Amino acid sequence: MPSLPKTLTAAMADTVEQVEAAIEVLLPRSNLMEARLFDAMRYGCLGGGKRLRPFLVMESARMFGVNPACALRTAAAVEFIHCYSLVHDDLPAMDDSELRRGRKTVHLEFDEATAILAGDGLLTQAFEILADHETHEDPQVRCKLVAALAKAAGPRGMVGGQMLDLIAETTPLDIGAITRLQRLKTGEMIAFSAVAGAILGRAGAPQHHALQAYAHDLGLAFQIADDLLDVEGSQDEVGKPVGRDDVAGKATFVSILGTERARDQARRLAGQAAQHLEIFGDRADMLRQVAHYVVERRT
Amino acid sequence: MPSLPKTLTAAMADTVEQVEAAIEVLLPRSNLMEARLFDAMRYGCLGGGKRLRPFLVMESARMFGVNPACALRTAAAVEFIHCYSLVHDDLPAMDDSELRRGRKTVHLEFDEATAILAGDGLLTQAFEILADHETHEDPQVRCKLVAALAKAAGPRGMVGGQMLDLIAETTPLDIGAITRLQRLKTGEMIAFSAVAGAILGRAGAPQHHALQAYAHDLGLAFQIADDLLDVEGSQDEVGKPVGRDDVAGKATFVSILGTERARDQARRLAGQAAQHLEIFGDRADMLRQVAHYVVERRT
Repeated sequence: MPSLPKTLTAAMADTVEQVEAAIEVLLPRSNLMEARLFDAMRYGCLGGGKRLRPFLVMESARMFGVNPACALRTAAAVEFIHCYSLVHDDLPAMDDSELRRGRKTVHLEFDEATAILAGDGLLTQAFEILADHETHEDPQVRCKLVAALAKAAGPRGMVGGQMLDLIAETTPLDIGAITRLQRLKTGEMIAFSAVAGAILGRAGAPQHHALQAYAHDLGLAFQIADDLLDVEGSQDEVGKPVGRDDVAGKATFVSILGTERARDQARRLAGQAAQHLEIFGDRADMLRQVAHYVVERRT
Repeated sequence: MPSLPKTLTAAMADTVEQVEAAIEVLLPRSNLMEARLFDAMRYGCLGGGKRLRPFLVMESARMFGVNPACALRTAAAVEFIHCYSLVHDDLPAMDDSELRRGRKTVHLEFDEATAILAGDGLLTQAFEILADHETHEDPQVRCKLVAALAKAAGPRGMVGGQMLDLIAETTPLDIGAITRLQRLKTGEMIAFSAVAGAILGRAGAPQHHALQAYAHDLGLAFQIADDLLDVEGSQDEVGKPVGRDDVAGKATFVSILGTERARDQARRLAGQAAQHLEIFGDRADMLRQVAHYVVERRT
């Protein structure tokens, strides 16, 4: 029997703690001569972040009665990949960011070469974690996880979205192109996270599709909310510089729709996301609450 | 029955052609807005290279009667990872190289941000390829490939070696530390390539161990030969700038042992590598020849 739903805040705080502990185990401090690499990897993925993607993994896995230890390894792998993407995204040649989660970015705390390698290391280790038998007894399930995560993170997913984001700096994009950019850049990883529970729980196609549809709307709602925070939030709240899209002249949902319509759209998508979860009954209450949380959050 | 051994040169040329064709299929040109990413990935891994690692995969797989199409996918995945490491290694923040395989490096042909993403894309897609059922019917085998390749390429493998290489620029290393650096930086990927055939062929422990021991000596011999080429070769032959270790004041096998002892050591290791293959009889002739090739090559 699934445990009783806690409030979303408490449940998310729980996941933050669990993910932190899991990363400590998967990526311990090193005594080796190359310890600096492990320090940079740890700096890049410990101590911060909402852990939204791990939370989606944990919650979707809970719905199917998946062993929480297996779900947690999958959640950590997703977070490794999310954090690698931030480390590389912040590099001088990319977004050239100085601040992330309220702290110096990895290439400033360490150096550029170390940041490149730390990102590479996190990305690679994520797949090592997923392929290990501790993540799931069934190798078929592990292969599915690896294939789906690699697709979500790779050139036809997140990395493709990052490329589009670079192109958007010099090429005006219409709303369709921006929607596709965001679906690739953040949507695919969010979708993997939500579907991971169904893969781990060997759920049927209807469950897969429901989570996929949920994640699709959730990802877009999340991104519009992110664009709104970039316009309306403060650096202290958000933990990274704000207003940068505007300065860069980059088209976003907000620059095209305006803040009011963008906010309406985000709320509409959040509601729609929640509706896709009907087949799960009240087991999906937490995932429904997440949909509303992502559009109302201030960080 | 395995096909008759061809001469090494012909067999290696064959692999070069097959790998090129496989990459064309796995990484076709794109019509999407982010086509530049795919162009950069293709530029980074098509048209050049000895394809030594793929050759080791193909030859070790042949010894166990593995379906060549499966071996070729594995070989391509290894080459994706090898090429990603070169793309990132050449970046201004790393080795800052202008020339690779006789052509401009990816960040000069495209730009730095695109080179970072192209490397990330190649790394990620390698795991997607391995996890796919087309690579092997048995998901257990695919998981083993993913786990072993991720370990060889990750922070306790190649990426750790690259970190040590950065450290070597400012810290004097003794022969033990250099041996460890090279084992991590190039040895682990060479070892994976040689063992991949045994994984694909579900071979027993003695076969695994023999290939592991072969690859260990082969990897060191390869690296000493590389250091010798950096001292004795010309840019035209090698396809990249030479003499850079010396200018950087980096300790290498050659700077510590001198060219004569280094060459002796490389030949000794190549002979030793070949001896580990005894249990395979003449099926391993090609792998024996490779060991001698890597120390006598001029490119």
